[in-house]
Amino acid sequence: MIGRLDHVAIAVTDVESAAATYRDLLGARVSEPKALFEQGVRVVFVELDNTRIELMEPLGDASPIAAFVERKPDGGLHHVCYEVDDIIAARDHLLGAGARILGDGQPLMGAHGKRVLFVHPKDLCGTLVELQEA
Amino acid sequence: MIGRLDHVAIAVTDVESAAATYRDLLGARVSEPKALFEQGVRVVFVELDNTRIELMEPLGDASPIAAFVERKPDGGLHHVCYEVDDIIAARDHLLGAGARILGDGQPLMGAHGKRVLFVHPKDLCGTLVELQEA
Repeated sequence: MIGRLDHVAIAVTDVESAAATYRDLLGARVSEPKALFEQGVRVVFVELDNTRIELMEPLGDASPIAAFVERKPDGGLHHVCYEVDDIIAARDHLLGAGARILGDGQPLMGAHGKRVLFVHPKDLCGTLVELQEA
Repeated sequence: MIGRLDHVAIAVTDVESAAATYRDLLGARVSEPKALFEQGVRVVFVELDNTRIELMEPLGDASPIAAFVERKPDGGLHHVCYEVDDIIAARDHLLGAGARILGDGQPLMGAHGKRVLFVHPKDLCGTLVELQEA
């Protein structure tokens, strides 16, 4: 079912500072920061040879990552995103196996204009997993 | 400096159960479990189209991930591993910029027979980063 790893997301308090760390310490290619108002985050993408890292900081008081970075002011690994061919089939397979989809179970529009949904961490090795339609 | 994402490591209490989750819930290809005595972990690799996930459970009382899974019995994202061409040059660049290398600063032999080292999470966005020589 899952194909490529689309990205690994790292939540931070300051995305410019995190981007500078990846650029200067690790010599990576980083994008310009971009506000994603619907997701409540500002993001920078680190482009690796085979995938990318999404650095994200909270945007607005209702940001879904506000509590995470408050708990971890240094930042931390937040989620992984796997591609699937058919997000509805993937969701139905997961629900049929007893896994929990966050929210109302309907796919959302993700950062890349593709449909996404999130699976409950307790059902996937304590890891928040985003599924994104390829 | 960094090239490919070699793997994302997820620490769990039971690697067989985690492998079954990835195989049955996510439809992924998983390897047989393998004991890595020097690293103090038992691992299963999840083969994705562009990279892999390393599921690992503690092996032995002195396992470096024992405290982590005790804190997070459901499991959790543990580290990411980036490839570099020259691990000594990478280390020296990081040390010169004030970053901290875990241990005595000498590369270790990693799970894949390649030289690796770990950078202090506080110096890289709260994320434990393994660098592996390509």
